[in-house]
Formats: sequence, structure tokens, C-alpha cells
Amino acid sequence: MAGDGSDQRALQYEQTLMYGRYTQELGVYAKEEAARLRESGQRRSVSERSRTLDLLEYDKGRCAKCRICTVRCQKFLISRVGEDWIFLILLGLLMALVSWVVDFCIAICLQAQKWMYGGLDSNVFLQYLAWVTYPVVLITFSAGFTQILAPQAVGSGIPEMKTILRGVVLKEYLTFKTFVAKVIGLTCALGSGMPLGKEGPFVHIASLCAALLSKFMSLFGGIYENESRNIEMLAAACAVGVGCCFAAPIGGVLFSIEVTSTFFAVRNYWRGFFAATFSAFIFRVLAVWNRDEETITALFKTRFRLDFPFDLQELPAFAVIGIASGFGGALFVYLNRLIVQFIRKQKAINRFLMKKRLLYPALVTLLVSTLTFPPGFGQFMAGKLTQKESLVTLLDNRTWAKQGIAEEFDYIGHSQAWKHPQVNVFVTLVLFIVMKFWMSALATTIPVPCGAFMPVFVIGAAFGRLVGESMAAWFPDGIHTDGTIYPIVPGGYAVVGAAALSGAVTHTVSTAVIVFELTGQISHILPVMIAVILANAVAQSLQPSLYDSIIRIKKLPYLPELGWGHHEKYNIRVEDIMVRDVRYITLNCCYRDLHNVLLTGHLKTLALVESAESMILLGSIERAQLQSLLSQQLGRPRRLEYIRERAVAEKKRLSIVSNPDSEDSSQRVSQEVRFQISTEESTFSPVRPVAQKPLKPALKRPSVVERPTEIPTSPNDNSGIALKNLFCASPDTEGLEDDGDVEDDMTIREIAEWEEMQLDEQVNFNNCKIDPAPFQLVERTSLHKTHTIFSLLGLDHAYVTSIGRLIGVVSLKELRKAIEGSVTVKGVKVRPPLASFRDSGTSSSENEATELHKLWDRHKSMSLPREHTPSESDEKSQ
Amino acid sequence: MAGDGSDQRALQYEQTLMYGRYTQELGVYAKEEAARLRESGQRRSVSERSRTLDLLEYDKGRCAKCRICTVRCQKFLISRVGEDWIFLILLGLLMALVSWVVDFCIAICLQAQKWMYGGLDSNVFLQYLAWVTYPVVLITFSAGFTQILAPQAVGSGIPEMKTILRGVVLKEYLTFKTFVAKVIGLTCALGSGMPLGKEGPFVHIASLCAALLSKFMSLFGGIYENESRNIEMLAAACAVGVGCCFAAPIGGVLFSIEVTSTFFAVRNYWRGFFAATFSAFIFRVLAVWNRDEETITALFKTRFRLDFPFDLQELPAFAVIGIASGFGGALFVYLNRLIVQFIRKQKAINRFLMKKRLLYPALVTLLVSTLTFPPGFGQFMAGKLTQKESLVTLLDNRTWAKQGIAEEFDYIGHSQAWKHPQVNVFVTLVLFIVMKFWMSALATTIPVPCGAFMPVFVIGAAFGRLVGESMAAWFPDGIHTDGTIYPIVPGGYAVVGAAALSGAVTHTVSTAVIVFELTGQISHILPVMIAVILANAVAQSLQPSLYDSIIRIKKLPYLPELGWGHHEKYNIRVEDIMVRDVRYITLNCCYRDLHNVLLTGHLKTLALVESAESMILLGSIERAQLQSLLSQQLGRPRRLEYIRERAVAEKKRLSIVSNPDSEDSSQRVSQEVRFQISTEESTFSPVRPVAQKPLKPALKRPSVVERPTEIPTSPNDNSGIALKNLFCASPDTEGLEDDGDVEDDMTIREIAEWEEMQLDEQVNFNNCKIDPAPFQLVERTSLHKTHTIFSLLGLDHAYVTSIGRLIGVVSLKELRKAIEGSVTVKGVKVRPPLASFRDSGTSSSENEATELHKLWDRHKSMSLPREHTPSESDEKSQ
Repeated sequence: MAGDGSDQRALQYEQTLMYGRYTQELGVYAKEEAARLRESGQRRSVSERSRTLDLLEYDKGRCAKCRICTVRCQKFLISRVGEDWIFLILLGLLMALVSWVVDFCIAICLQAQKWMYGGLDSNVFLQYLAWVTYPVVLITFSAGFTQILAPQAVGSGIPEMKTILRGVVLKEYLTFKTFVAKVIGLTCALGSGMPLGKEGPFVHIASLCAALLSKFMSLFGGIYENESRNIEMLAAACAVGVGCCFAAPIGGVLFSIEVTSTFFAVRNYWRGFFAATFSAFIFRVLAVWNRDEETITALFKTRFRLDFPFDLQELPAFAVIGIASGFGGALFVYLNRLIVQFIRKQKAINRFLMKKRLLYPALVTLLVSTLTFPPGFGQFMAGKLTQKESLVTLLDNRTWAKQGIAEEFDYIGHSQAWKHPQVNVFVTLVLFIVMKFWMSALATTIPVPCGAFMPVFVIGAAFGRLVGESMAAWFPDGIHTDGTIYPIVPGGYAVVGAAALSGAVTHTVSTAVIVFELTGQISHILPVMIAVILANAVAQSLQPSLYDSIIRIKKLPYLPELGWGHHEKYNIRVEDIMVRDVRYITLNCCYRDLHNVLLTGHLKTLALVESAESMILLGSIERAQLQSLLSQQLGRPRRLEYIRERAVAEKKRLSIVSNPDSEDSSQRVSQEVRFQISTEESTFSPVRPVAQKPLKPALKRPSVVERPTEIPTSPNDNSGIALKNLFCASPDTEGLEDDGDVEDDMTIREIAEWEEMQLDEQVNFNNCKIDPAPFQLVERTSLHKTHTIFSLLGLDHAYVTSIGRLIGVVSLKELRKAIEGSVTVKGVKVRPPLASFRDSGTSSSENEATELHKLWDRHKSMSLPREHTPSESDEKSQ
Repeated sequence: MAGDGSDQRALQYEQTLMYGRYTQELGVYAKEEAARLRESGQRRSVSERSRTLDLLEYDKGRCAKCRICTVRCQKFLISRVGEDWIFLILLGLLMALVSWVVDFCIAICLQAQKWMYGGLDSNVFLQYLAWVTYPVVLITFSAGFTQILAPQAVGSGIPEMKTILRGVVLKEYLTFKTFVAKVIGLTCALGSGMPLGKEGPFVHIASLCAALLSKFMSLFGGIYENESRNIEMLAAACAVGVGCCFAAPIGGVLFSIEVTSTFFAVRNYWRGFFAATFSAFIFRVLAVWNRDEETITALFKTRFRLDFPFDLQELPAFAVIGIASGFGGALFVYLNRLIVQFIRKQKAINRFLMKKRLLYPALVTLLVSTLTFPPGFGQFMAGKLTQKESLVTLLDNRTWAKQGIAEEFDYIGHSQAWKHPQVNVFVTLVLFIVMKFWMSALATTIPVPCGAFMPVFVIGAAFGRLVGESMAAWFPDGIHTDGTIYPIVPGGYAVVGAAALSGAVTHTVSTAVIVFELTGQISHILPVMIAVILANAVAQSLQPSLYDSIIRIKKLPYLPELGWGHHEKYNIRVEDIMVRDVRYITLNCCYRDLHNVLLTGHLKTLALVESAESMILLGSIERAQLQSLLSQQLGRPRRLEYIRERAVAEKKRLSIVSNPDSEDSSQRVSQEVRFQISTEESTFSPVRPVAQKPLKPALKRPSVVERPTEIPTSPNDNSGIALKNLFCASPDTEGLEDDGDVEDDMTIREIAEWEEMQLDEQVNFNNCKIDPAPFQLVERTSLHKTHTIFSLLGLDHAYVTSIGRLIGVVSLKELRKAIEGSVTVKGVKVRPPLASFRDSGTSSSENEATELHKLWDRHKSMSLPREHTPSESDEKSQ
């Protein structure tokens, strides 16, 4: 439990070069905000009703009824606006437009590059300059623009949405600024022709759209103010994001469920389907209206034969694609993480890149575009083709290599790019796969809005094509034995490969559905399903998914999955993993206990028990609440009060006869005290001033709760002064200072004495916000069930009780430990299968832990709480 | 809260003609069983380990290492058997075989009917007899066989699986007998050619397979003994059921999720996909091996053109299909329920049908097959075709009616059946739709294993075809305006119609995926999605889904969905709906309190609080536990003990000098008492003997917990005798009687006095099973959140606490009331939109309630608890 605070500190300190970073504040802000909004909503509805009544009374004589009718109609219309389906239609429409416009702009950008490159065919060097400068400029602009406007827009967005849907509030993540940065940044990044995708960012953009639309529509009143409804809408938005990106409504819904949810509410299903279908429909209708297409069809339509799509004997080849894709997918995730960690660890590179923030994207782009330069190395890897063109050619119906002889290859259009006079088509494909593989892994680390799905999809298709072409060369007349010759269709293999590799990287099965919707053909369903499942089986046992990997890199709060059939998990119980030494406060404790508890622990919430003997759990209190209780008790206003009271008593003692109405005066004082107690509520939570400004970046303005390090672990002898420093710095108590008509004439010694006295008083919990029903588990609850409950309810910690008595606590951390296999149960170390292989990838977390300890020691030795500014500046310079 | 008991009684009394009926015992049995199995598993593993050690010591001299190695390998293999994927592969394989064999048998049955019918073409009357007798015999056999072997096998199975996956244990529902009854019953029922489906039953069969396989594999040890794992496996099995029925793995997974879950664990996703894919694969491979197919393709392959599947301007027609299907689907559900309720309510019909149990199926079959007799009325509705043939012809590529002239219709094969010399093809289609509609609604009420999906699917396809043919007749040259003529494809409309109507009836969107997988073409994705969503929107606002309707008819425990955008729900809080008058017991209460609480309430569990003043919730205790506590206290053994003790005391008083070792004797007595207390555990729960016999039908043997009516609400004056009657009838106390060496010489008056005395003692909760962490809510929890938590965790009730103090309780019933709109919040009656329309269907529940009250009054007036045998005999005769 003790490491919880340091985890959080790590979240604050750890600089992330490649990605933005967020601080957690599990649901607290959301709940307060919801409560506030609910109240204001009620107030509004009341005022509306009274307005109607006013109208009724005012216009009684004239056409009153008519007016009331109008008002009612208006109200009816407005209430209809509040219905889900209108929101979903608007969301779908908006996202379809955004998707189409982004695609259109990307197409123009890519055309412009081609035009430039084509126009300069007289001079290779100029051609090279044009080929290279164009993407470098675009990517640099994208990176710079995003960095300046909203660093949160960097990266895919799916990991963050997964975290948000788990109940964590990531500040600044769903603002208009981020929306603008993401859309423009994405357009430029993809327009550069780098191997980047639009799927992940579109999930984020759709969520942004939903959040903004929700905010906009709440102007009309209604229910846009409910926390759980917002979560539901965000889940639907994720589906829309994928749906309108690929015109794949079903695959979109499934993919978004798989990558963002752990438990999915089936009642929310229709929302996703509705919005995604509408969005995909509009997206394709726009293409028809723009005369790109004759009617609504698939994005990458294939024309494989229907009557005999594949032979039963080809299935082993498909299985091979699946297994190889599984290894490839795991390798991709590993490579991606390795690059990020390598750059982070190399202090020299790191410091240099910190200073020149845009250098890294520019360098990577330069490298990639140099290698794809068509007259150069690009000629061996179809470097001329854009991502879309490559995919279209890879999914092509025809066989490129008949009996190994490249001459029979009927090259039309873009397919020509795969032909090289000297080099076999197989070599081209292998080079394409190998080069694109590391290029994509590298490119996705650039700090621009970008996804990795599409590049991986293309690589998978190329791999499938390679296997397919090999099969076609091996069996020129097909495998089928009875009479009819059914030649092998390498395009089908490409479809299988694309689904398998993208499924392996993202750990999803629904890529299968996405390929069907993308190609418009479902004839290869069984091979695709087999390959995807095998790829998933292999990849999931080797590496986390790309999104989970990014979540770990970004240090977002997460709960690992239980994984495939780890049946040891069924035998671990909560009592094996819980922390027995629970920090608690009793109902009749004094402020000194509170003080001690705050000094020693780092938990965000503390258990409240009836008494140390009975240990009956009554609820939990947030740390911030306790801090304000303590600051209230030791604060300057209260001390001034004390001084005043003492002065009055003094006066009374001195002039007990001369001033007969001294009693009245003392009464006044006590009244004042009572008054002060009654206003406690408003000055109570120091979190609120920060929490009410959700638009400020969390990076730059850590709030009080998020800074538990600021409680210095000084010994008790000078606690008085230390406490004063600590708690009286809060602005609320500062603000109350000027009411003092008495001067603070106490010496430090007197203050310390006074504080000691104050600390012995019993705590008054009356105005304290207590969570009366923290989640409770029993000792015998299995790990499996605990995991389920934690992920179902988005818990952060749960108390373990035995007939009402508090006996332990389990937090996400313990659970994470238990699942990831570092907890020993009955002497046996529980490890997932193939964990040794995985260790090479994740062992860095231990290093991080030791680094954290160093950091923690450094913090301890510091006297000033604001000493960690260098890390802050580091953060800013990323 | 008071109605909870009567609800349960309703469950017992209410006779269901059409379906089996089950009593609930939420998780209790499952939990006990799991605990028992876990313990035995641990014991087994310990014994295995010791065996290895034995071997080690025994064979030390010789090839000991070799032997140990063998043992280890064996253990390793056995542990591998425990892995999920092996289980899933076996399940998939088994289900594919079952599905294929069932299909094969059905095909043979249908062929036999055709052969008989064809052979007798000389005499129409003989032909009619053959045509009619054959299905009547098959259906009657199916109904009788199912009734005798396992009445649980009747009906679809999806409603029950939904209930089981919600955590309710339905006894007898997953046994081998049920498996046999379901498979054979289903084969006969479908072989009769009646409009019945195999999807629903296959979900049940797959679950049966999973349960049996799980039981079988637990022989090899492993983790087949975990409750939550079993639930996960059942969910996967449901997917397999749909997947192997239609060779539709993706659609199967999605459909099973939609119809059985409210919250779906994404981590369980792969299980369904894996097993369903494997199963579908094997199912289709069997067809290839059987030379039915050349390679693996879709079940109902279509050959629509790929390049221009439909025009944008055809979309309104698709939307019309969707909306009409929505109304049609709601009508179907309504009609189905109406038929069941009509037959139940008509006392005369009911009584007659009760006596002749097999008459109803025979009559229905006679009616349906008479109407489809091909030379008779069947000629106007393609009565000759089986369900499969109709579907194949309906999905046909070609247009039947070109410009309204039937002559151009190129009839080949089965399509000929749609042609009639006198009648237009449109009339045939309309007749087919209308007749099949009510026939299917009627046929699915027959008490045989049967589903409604396939008939509805066919009707939907016919409706789509009708619209398509009309469009083709209206626009003979297609709608497309630019140059090329693209004629309209009515087969595409049939696909859309099939998906829309089946989606409307089942309230699912995944029927869209199922049609793609069934037809092997995804080109109509947008029309299908649009139609399915519109159909769902309409149907969901009018009627519950067919499965929910059956759940209500069968009175299975359920929780209604929150529905589409009822935003009033967001403003209701738990405090608005909770029951404030909670029955509780305190930690230091006496047995009299226990007695009173048991007499007045009907709750299955009671809250345990610290004291009536503090009201701090400590846990909850089951009613049965309290009953045994009380019976323990007032039971005969304890009274005999008392008599013995009294006799000893008497003796002691009489011969205080003559017998110096009387102290020893009294010590012996107290030892005996202690002994008796220590064996309390074994004689403790009267539920267990019943609970350990899960193989007996719940209908015939109501257990003690399920019979709360047996506590007579007699006044307190004769409570002694009443209590004796009540509690001493349990077999455990009976068995202990013969140890009495003292005779029971107490008079009734003395017994009453003694009981009064016993009742004043304080309750000893030491041996009582207390649930230490019942689920708690706070008063401000919203209805929305409460619903989520209830459905997430499968709760039955939750306590409402405020800082540990119990202030209320919410059960499923209150929640159901609040959601279904009979709770008024702030003066406004909250009702779902279009509720008035829905009322006509569900108002019968009120009638049922009044009937229940009558029943309850009758029960009250009865003296003997076993008086309700007539209702039992009613049940048996159904």
C-alpha cells in the first residue's frame, strides 16, 4: 500500500517523450461536477416552470391558452432534442463529415506530393528534395501544431479512451482545442504519406465530438449532465469513430468494444450500432454524391469468385499465416515499446531531443521518406504507392506470379509498382514487409496524432499476399482434385493476412468483421476467423496489446486482464493478497491521530471505523477531507479566534466589575465561532477550486490531492510549525485572515503549545464528506471474482471485512501484482505461461520501481516541497 | 417487500401449460456446491501429492526417477486437459457433430414424408392422410417423449439460459436426461415439417453439452468446479449453439451475447469466437466430407451481383421493410403470448387439455398440416416446400415477376412451387406470409423443443421478397439514372426482410451479421443495418422481445431493461423506491425476536444489525439458517436434554447424600450438551438434504426454503404447539429422537412453558452462516446506477445504508416496479413511451396478482401446510 503514493509521484515525475501524460483522479471530479450540474438543472427546471406560471397569470385575458400551447410545444421540442437518437444522429453526421473531409484533404495532399514529384522528373536530386521535404514539412508542422495547441492530441487515443471508459477522468482530454489539434494534426500527418493510420485518432475525435456535442446540447437542457450517460455516449462514440473511418459499422462497434471495454453493457449496444451505421452510411453517401462511386459499396472492394472461394486443403496455409502473424504482431508491439524506451533511457539523446522538440519527427520522416524514394531503394518495395493504393493492389483478384515467371504478370495501373525488371515479385514483397514493419513501428512513436492500425493492416495484407503468391506458384492448377481447376486466389490470402496481423497487434477478433466490411466479401470467413484466432492466441501469450502497451508506457491507471485460462487464479483469495495493515481513523479519534495517519500513509482514502476495538467499518474519507479538517483545526482563523477569546477572558478577569456586559461579549464570540463552523462547508475542500477548472492542463497545475509528497515526513518535535507551514498555505485560510481585528501576538512557542492543545481535541466529522458505502469484499472472495468486480465497477480499492469488521484492504496495485504473477500462494510462484519470454519486454517496470525509490529518497532529503520544479520544466520541454 | 413471498408462491402455484417451470434459489445451491467441490478438489490434490511421495520412497532403489517422470508427465497432461481451449475444442466438435446429425435426421424425415406423399399420388385422400398423419405422429411422439423424460427440454431454451447466466440456478435444467430429450424431441419436431426452428434449442443443447462435458472433464481434475468459470463456459456454449446451427460464428457470438447477457465480459469474448468458429468449421467440413458441398461455403449461398448491389434510391424501400418488420415482430410476440394466455385462461379448454396432454400438439399439427396440404390450400402458399427450400427460393437471384407478367418467370426446381396457374405470385407471397405468421406463432406454443427464429426468418424473407418483387414490377429497368441498366434484385430485399423481422422479434441487431454469414454475401450491409435498426426501434418500443416475453410467461426471475432513452430514470434515486421498513435482527436478540421476524416477513434473507439503536449493518442471514437456529432451540432433542437435566437435578436433590459422585453425573450431562452443540453443524441446515439432490425435479419436491407459507400466521397464544409442529417435523431432529433414555413426559402445557422459557434466551450466532458483506447502496444512488449494479452483479436485493446504518432495502421487485413505471416520483407518473399500447399485452399481470391474493387468503384459512396438493396435481397433468 505504501507504494501507492510513489506510483502517483511516478505519474507526475516520469517524463514521456513520445506521448502526453495524465494524472488520475478517479471519478472524484466527475462525481462532484455531476452533483453540481444536477442541482443547477433542478433549479433551472423549477425556474422554467415558474416562468410558465407567470405567463399564465400575465396573459390571462388574451390568447393565454395559445401562448401556453406554444411554450409547451417549445418545451416538447426541446425535450425531444434531449433524446438519445437525435444525439446519435448528429454525432454520426458530424463524424461522417469529418471523416470525409479529412480523407479528401489527405487525398489532395498526397496528390500534390505526386504532382511535385512527377513534375520534377528531369532531375533526380530535385525529385528527391521534393519527395523528402514535403512529408518532413507536414509532419513537423503537425507535431509543432499539436504540441502548441493541445499535447493531449498526440498518439492514437484508444488507450486514453479505454482509461476514460474505465472511469478515470483525464483532464483536458475532451476539449475543443484538442479536437482542432487532433483533426488538423491528423490530416497533415497522414497527408505526408508516412505509414500512419487514422483509426485510433478517429476514436478519439469521435469521443471529442460526442463530448462537445453533449456540452452544446446541454444548452437546451435535458440529460446531458449525467455521468453514466456520458460514459455510454462515449462508448457509442468510439464505435462511430471506427465505423466512419472504415465504413464498417459492425466491425466498428465490435472493435471499439474489444479495445475500450472490459465489461460491456448490452443495453448500450444499439447506440453504437445506430450511430456507427448512420455515420458509415453518410460517409459512403458523400462519396456517391462526389461522383467517386456509382453506389454505396465497400471501401476496398474485392472481386473474388463466390462459388469456390478456397479449398479445404488450403486451410493449413491460412493457419500458418495466423500463427506467423501472431508472432509478427507481438514483435511489432515489442519493437514499438523498445523504441520508446530506448529513446527515453539514452540520456544524451533524450536531452538533445528535449531541446529540439521537432527534430525527432523530422529525422524519422526524413529517414522513412528517403528509404521509400521511388528511384532509390523505393523501387524495390513499391515505395511509389500510397497506403491506400498498396492495399488495393494487394487485395487484387489476379495472381501476380504464375509459376514463378514474372513475365505473365498482367500489370495494370498501380500494380505495376510491384514489378521490377531485375527483381522477383517475391523479393519486392519481402522487402516491403520488412521495411514497412520497422518503419511503422518507428513512425507511430512520432508525437503526432496517428494510429497504427492501417499500417499494420497493410503489412498483414502484404504478408498474406506473399504466402498466397507462393501457394499459387507452388500449385499452379490449384489444389482441388476432382475435375474442375480452381486456381488459388492470392488476394484471399492477403485478406486473411491483414485481418490476422491487425488482430494480433490489437488483440481483437473483430478485425475479421472489419475486413469483411472493408472488402465487401465474406466468402473467406472461415480462413479469416481461424487465422485471427490463432494470431490472437499467439500474440496474447507473448505481449500485451499495442493499446495496453501504450497504457503502460504512458503510466495510465490500468488493470491487467486475467488472460487465457490461467486457472491458478481461481485458487487465490483476497486474504492472500490483501494488505492487513490498514490505515484507519476511528469515529472518536482526536486530531493528533488524524495528523499521524496523514503523515505516515499515502492513500487517497482512509477507512473510518467505529473504534479500534470493534473495527466496524463505517465508511471511507478522502485524504483531502482530512487535510482540510486538520487545517481547519490548526488554521490561523481558529488561532485568532483563540487569541480573541483569550483576550476577552483576560479583559473579563481584569475588569470583572467595571464592565458588566462582558457576558454579552463572550456570547458574541461564541456566536461568531458558531458562525464560523457553519461556514466551514464553503471553505472546506481545498480541491474544489482546482477541480472547478477542468480546462487547465493537469500537467502544469497539480492539485493538492495529487501532491501527497508535500507532507514532509519530519519528526514530531517540530510538527507544530511544520503543520502550520503545510496547512495554512491553502488559499481559503489565507482569505479569512483579514477579518482579524486582533493582532497575532503569539510566539512560536505559544503557537506550538496551542497546536498541541488543539491536536488533543476530538474530531468533529459533521461537515466531512464520508463515503458511506465503500466497496467491501470478504476474505474468501476469489481473485477471479475480485478482478471482475474491480473491472465491472471501475474500483480503485476495496475494503475486506469480516462481519462488518475491517480486516484488510485491496487496491488495484495488489490486484495487478497478484495477476501479473509476483505473488506467491502456498509457496508456488504463480506465473502466466511463457512469462519468461514476456519478461524481456516488461522487466523495465522493475527498473522503474527502483528509479522511483531513488526519486523518493531524493524527495525525502529535500526540505522544500516545491523542489521538483526541474522535472516540471522537463515535462514542459518535451 | 411483503409481496416477495407471494411472488415466490406464485412461482410455485401458477401452472404453465406450454412450458416447464422452475423455482429460483439464487445462487445458494451453486455456492454450496462450489464450496463442497473445492474442498474435495483440494483433498484430491493432497492425496495425489502423497501418492507421488509414496512412489518416491517405495522405488528408491530402482528406476525411481523414471517413474516420477512418468507420473509428472501424466500430471502435466491431465493439467493440460484442464485448459480452456481443449474444453472449447471438444465442445465445438461435439456440437458440430450433434448439429450435423440432427440436420441429417431432419432431412431424412422430410424426405420420407415427401416420398410417402409422392408415392400415393393416385388418391388424394390417401395423400392427405399421409401428409397429415406423419407430422402428427412425429410431433405427438416428440411432445410425449419430452414430457416423460424431461419436461425442462420443452421450448426454446434461450430464456432459461438468460436466467441461468444471470446467476439463477434452474434445477434439472442441465442434465443428461434433458440433453437426450431435447435432441430427440427437436429432431422429431423439426422432422415433421412444422414451422419451427432449431436455433433456440441449440443454445440449450450447447449449454447442456458444456455442463456435461464440464462434469465429465472434472473427473480428470482441474478447474471444472468453479462457479464463475462455469458461467463463462455457458456463455461460450450459447455462442457455439448459434454458431454451429447456422455455420455463423460471428453472428452466433453476437446473437448469443445480445439475447443472454446484460453485461458482457470482453475477456470472455475469445472463448465464444474460438469455440463457435471451430464448431462452424467442423459443421461445414462434415458437409464437404459427405459430398454435399464441394468446399466450405455459406449455408444459403446467394449470388447477387457485386458491382452494383443496390441503388441509393432503393434505400427508402429498405427502410419501409424495416419499419413494417418492426410492427410485424411486435405483433408476432404479442400473438404468441396471446395464444398462451388464451389457452391458460379458458378454464374449460385448459382442463380438457390438461387431461389429454398430447391432444393440443396433435390438434395444432393437424390444423397446420391440413392448411399446407399441397393439393389443397397449400397450392396457394407454396405448401410443398420445406422451410429450407422456401428460404433458398426466396433468396434466389432472379426476379420472379417481370413487369407483373408471371409468364416470364423462369421456374426451375423448387421455385416452381411459387407458381400457380391461376394466381399471381404476389398473392402467393401474401398468403404465405399471412398463413405462416399465425402458424408459426401457434406452432411455437406446442410443448416440444422448438425455436421461433427460423420460421420468423423465413416469413421475413418472404416479406422482403414481396417488397422486392413489387419494386421490380414497378421499376422494370431499375432506378439508376446514368446510362447502365441495373435491374432490381428482389433476393436482396428478401435478405433485408429476413434480418429485419428476426431482429424485431428477438430485439437483436446481430441478425444482420447472421444473414451475411448465412448468405455468404455482405454487399447489402447498409440496407440490412438500416432495416434491422429501424425494426428494432419500432419493436422495442411496442413489445418485449420474444425471449423476455417467454421469461414473463414462465415467471422466471428477471430485471427489465431500462429501454431507449428514458431519461426520467436518471432522476429517480434509491431513497424514492426503497422499502424503509426493513426486517432485521440484532446481534443480541433473543429467540422470540427471531420467531416474530420469521412469522411476519417473507424475505429470503434478513439483515443483521449491531443493535436496534445503532442499526449498524453487520451482514445478512438466510431465512433457512434462522429457521434451523430456532428449530434447534425448540427442538425435541433439546427438550429431552432439558428433561434429563431436570431429572438429574431432581435425583440430586433427592439423594444429595446417598450418591456422592452426582457432580460427575452432572458434568457428564454438560459434556453431552456440549457434544450436542458441536454436532449442531451437521444437523444444521434443513435445506441441504434437498439441495444435494439436484437431479430431482424442482416441481415435485419443493424444499423447505421454498415453502415459506408453511409458517402459519397463528396468534402467539398457541405458538408453542404450532412451533413444535412446524419445526420438529424436520428429519434431522426426528433422527435424534431414539437416543432418549428418558421418556417425554411433559404435558402440552409444560412444553409451552418450556418453549416460552427457551424463546427468551439470547441467540447464539456462532454456528450460523452469515453473509458478511451484503451489497450496500447509498440513498442518493440513482435508479440508473442501481439497475446497472443489480444486473452487473446479478443481485437479488441490496441494503441501503447511511454511514453504516441500515435505513432501507431494495429488491428486484422494487426495481422492477420503478422501471416499469408504477412508481410516482415527485407527483409525475413515470411511464415508458407508448406504454399505453403495451398495456394491453401486459395488463394480465395485475389479474395474476389478484388471483394470487385469493390464493394467499385460501392458504391462510388452511390449517395443514400440505393442503395445496391439488395445484400440484394440476401441474403434473399439464
